[in-house]
Amino acid sequence: MPPNGLKLLGAWFSPFALRVQISLNLKGLDYEVVEETLNPKSDLLLKSNPVHKKIPVLFHGDKVICDSTIIVEYIDEVWTNAPSILPSNAYDRANARFWVAWIDDKWLTSMRSILVAEDDEAKKPHLEQIEEIHERMEEVLNKFSEGKAFFGGDTIGYLDICLGSIWDWNRVMEEMNGRKVFDEAKNPALAKWAKTFAAHPAVNGLLPDTHNLIEFAEVFERKWTAEAAQ
Amino acid sequence: MPPNGLKLLGAWFSPFALRVQISLNLKGLDYEVVEETLNPKSDLLLKSNPVHKKIPVLFHGDKVICDSTIIVEYIDEVWTNAPSILPSNAYDRANARFWVAWIDDKWLTSMRSILVAEDDEAKKPHLEQIEEIHERMEEVLNKFSEGKAFFGGDTIGYLDICLGSIWDWNRVMEEMNGRKVFDEAKNPALAKWAKTFAAHPAVNGLLPDTHNLIEFAEVFERKWTAEAAQ
Repeated sequence: MPPNGLKLLGAWFSPFALRVQISLNLKGLDYEVVEETLNPKSDLLLKSNPVHKKIPVLFHGDKVICDSTIIVEYIDEVWTNAPSILPSNAYDRANARFWVAWIDDKWLTSMRSILVAEDDEAKKPHLEQIEEIHERMEEVLNKFSEGKAFFGGDTIGYLDICLGSIWDWNRVMEEMNGRKVFDEAKNPALAKWAKTFAAHPAVNGLLPDTHNLIEFAEVFERKWTAEAAQ
Repeated sequence: MPPNGLKLLGAWFSPFALRVQISLNLKGLDYEVVEETLNPKSDLLLKSNPVHKKIPVLFHGDKVICDSTIIVEYIDEVWTNAPSILPSNAYDRANARFWVAWIDDKWLTSMRSILVAEDDEAKKPHLEQIEEIHERMEEVLNKFSEGKAFFGGDTIGYLDICLGSIWDWNRVMEEMNGRKVFDEAKNPALAKWAKTFAAHPAVNGLLPDTHNLIEFAEVFERKWTAEAAQ
């Protein structure tokens, strides 16, 4: 473990662990990554997050912090010297929190529903919900960024990290369902943003390979479908 | 509207609007309350919170803030001179946010499930989930408060406000279902906390009458049952 005592319990496929890694990178912090396989859940996970039993978990010395958005806020509040992740203005912070909570609610519900849906007809409203996320974010990006590269302006911020971490799942959904989920022509600002985000030094190299994600998603599809049938 | 431009769009029965009122009171702020009837939803609500169409909404001059927890954080961040609502330490803040998110997830799901459940058998697991919230909060209170009056220590804080605002619904559930939901003997610290909370000057006088809440809940029960049957 590095001298700062930072250890992340995450997994290569987890968009939520990715948020934490990007945040730690942005702050220029050293950290150890422990890969959670989830099959079965490790003792470390069960002991450190007994309430949700979910990754990511951040260990900071003897402190344990759970939930991706709570961890990102924690990192931003403890390491205040480096670039700020949340906007500096209280109203902008409220807006960023609002959209992140909205995305997390809509996106996770949609993803799960798509993976357990029995046929294309059942998937349709949930794939459309993901398209709605894109349309809404295109509007928000145009409104917030005022022509700058990121939701937060010139630098990557909270909403960038939280949306950017789930972004590659668009391609996973597209390849698994044989249809477009993200429309570049309809959402040009977002298309440009996604490229700039992926190329950012704090992000570049962290994004998992799409084909590996698809293989993984197929495992989850079988697991969730089996659970839904119970 | 008072000179500070603060206006709350809320409703007497809403535990989420109550969080905002308590926070504004704690900060010693003047504010106007606009009562939302929800039947139908007002133009002001639809226009100011087009995404969720839910109360509470806080207007602060030309700024519009939605979602109770986001509003409470906003109030705390803008009026920093008065007593702090979120803990001053980043780790304590992370813990308070973690438990509030957990309560909101468990509680709202349980309440809705209890109100739409067809019979006592269907209600049972959800009533038990509310009991689990109490047991967990008893543990957390004993751990965090170190014998002090509140979750936040000597003064009311974020977790106190968020849990305290839904507290009276225990009695609503008890009267509507003819069974105990909160066990004072099992959760003595929480029982004492609830009394101290209700008597606090920022809270006292705001809590709605239980019998009015029951009448209101019966309306929701019919509405949600009808929606669930569709």
